[in-house]
Amino acid sequence: MRHAPLNTPAERAATEPGATVADLGERAIIARIRERLPSDPAWAVVGIGDDAAVIEPPRGALEVLTTDGLVEGIHFDRRFSRPSDIGWKALAVNVSDVAAMGGAPRAALLSLVLPPSFTIDALDELIDGFAALAREARITLAGGNITRSPGPLVIDVTLTGSVRRRDLLRRAGAQPGDGVFVTGSVGAGLAGLEWLRSAESGIEGMDASVERYRRPMPRFRIGAVLGRARVASACMDLSDGLADAARQITDASHVGIRIAAESLPVDDGARNWFETHGRDAAAAAASGGDDYELLFTVPRKRAGRLRHVRQHARGVPITRIGEITSERDAVLVRDGKPEPLPPGFVHF
Amino acid sequence: MRHAPLNTPAERAATEPGATVADLGERAIIARIRERLPSDPAWAVVGIGDDAAVIEPPRGALEVLTTDGLVEGIHFDRRFSRPSDIGWKALAVNVSDVAAMGGAPRAALLSLVLPPSFTIDALDELIDGFAALAREARITLAGGNITRSPGPLVIDVTLTGSVRRRDLLRRAGAQPGDGVFVTGSVGAGLAGLEWLRSAESGIEGMDASVERYRRPMPRFRIGAVLGRARVASACMDLSDGLADAARQITDASHVGIRIAAESLPVDDGARNWFETHGRDAAAAAASGGDDYELLFTVPRKRAGRLRHVRQHARGVPITRIGEITSERDAVLVRDGKPEPLPPGFVHF
Repeated sequence: MRHAPLNTPAERAATEPGATVADLGERAIIARIRERLPSDPAWAVVGIGDDAAVIEPPRGALEVLTTDGLVEGIHFDRRFSRPSDIGWKALAVNVSDVAAMGGAPRAALLSLVLPPSFTIDALDELIDGFAALAREARITLAGGNITRSPGPLVIDVTLTGSVRRRDLLRRAGAQPGDGVFVTGSVGAGLAGLEWLRSAESGIEGMDASVERYRRPMPRFRIGAVLGRARVASACMDLSDGLADAARQITDASHVGIRIAAESLPVDDGARNWFETHGRDAAAAAASGGDDYELLFTVPRKRAGRLRHVRQHARGVPITRIGEITSERDAVLVRDGKPEPLPPGFVHF
Repeated sequence: MRHAPLNTPAERAATEPGATVADLGERAIIARIRERLPSDPAWAVVGIGDDAAVIEPPRGALEVLTTDGLVEGIHFDRRFSRPSDIGWKALAVNVSDVAAMGGAPRAALLSLVLPPSFTIDALDELIDGFAALAREARITLAGGNITRSPGPLVIDVTLTGSVRRRDLLRRAGAQPGDGVFVTGSVGAGLAGLEWLRSAESGIEGMDASVERYRRPMPRFRIGAVLGRARVASACMDLSDGLADAARQITDASHVGIRIAAESLPVDDGARNWFETHGRDAAAAAASGGDDYELLFTVPRKRAGRLRHVRQHARGVPITRIGEITSERDAVLVRDGKPEPLPPGFVHF
């Protein structure tokens, strides 16, 4: 298809340097997106190109449904994120939500609100970023919508997933005495963005943190294994930060939480960044958003099953950072002294 | 809940005249939306308030998935549409897509991108408009997302539905000799918008057309019955106009179409509007968008089953407007003379 003669004005326009989506039109944009994505699995009965997509629902399982989006000027800045990062991240934030329910992602819908000045090259890159994570997490793009924007670029993604009823992970369910665990590391989301905004040089080791801000890896494998192994009593992702997630779990479960600052797995670059600026690394990392790790609680008698989860985590660390308590408060313990957990990340 | 004492700053702020969504914050907005919607059915296992919604998928049926949205300045103008109209229409455009597949709508996700200046009163009205159609079409709001907008109001809706495999209606499937039918009437979407933009007075009978532009009624009952009765060989909704739908069906089915201008059920107010301005009512109505009727084709031997569909149409007319042909062109026949069908509505 891509090497066929250029027949339509839209196809010819797309070859001009600096050509924009306004030169292409909706149908040519859709055709271009389809070309860049893997073909549909057998359970996708009707894919892109009819009034709606039609899929076979997961068999013997429940369906997880989530929607989340990125808005230019609110969630990203095109000076700091490449189009491919934006496409990746728009899918990643949804994958993270499905993982936090113990589900496995399946089908996505992509809704693009595009400024007419958005170039075709940028569109291609955005789709390639989306497709890269879709391939990795075995997600099918089942449909979507394209519309013109009078201002910001907006990318809204809907993602479905499947989860067996008994594997479902909720925010409610944590009990006093349960251990509190977090995947990966925290703080890179906040530190990476702060570094990009400050344009400071001379601080070593920030590249990896910035890359994690731009292109977070949602924990879809760990989420699905956590569900199947039935090890967690509650689970949530860190999209609005660890402090926020901790409060959401304690509110939903009617319990308290005590987190040991020393045990927080703060990203190396982020720790360096925060400490260079005289801030406490644990408190800063706990209050920042955009990390997309999983926070979960494990009853003592199920702690042995964590070994199975770690075997499937492909080297991603799973760290015990505290304990659920019966007091209804959220506490960060530093040098043996308790203090209130910092406020979470507010994005509205 | 709504008459309980006002405890939080957000709840108190919401009582001030002219208070905006920025005074409320995300969680209070979500709580407010939940209050205004009916409670969840048994198949909604996890509703609003966790990382993602979880539903029981339709049993013994396929799942329909669609997403469509309204962008301020592109799809609506707040001078012409009330917030409740915008909420209704954002759901209606999706219901129309599910109906066009022969499906019955089930669960919606609502993604709101709100300017900080959007008032709480306007938000309440928007949700009430959405809820009014949700109740009518028995749709559950399973989840969604709220984010701040740096500019326009954007409402993106995802809708799921169910359809049995054998009842599925596609754009492909029309055969030469099939009759072409349309539900309701056409032209009100275009004429209503033109009247609002022109602010002309002195033209009678436009109120109903304007109301149909503002608050279109998607044909969800007829779509589901068309599917179950297995009467249609192809089907599509008219969101981008009748001419566009006719071309999409003929392209997907590799056939042609011949439509009789005299038989088109043009909305009364729209006909008056177009003719007052010296335009051909049939051609104008066929090229305009925003009508949300269904266009479908029926093989001759199944035409008898249309009686069953009409019985379930609750008085909505179903009109035969033409025939599928083996020539690969789209023709409008006026006064016995064929002419090319006008171009469809282009919204990108």
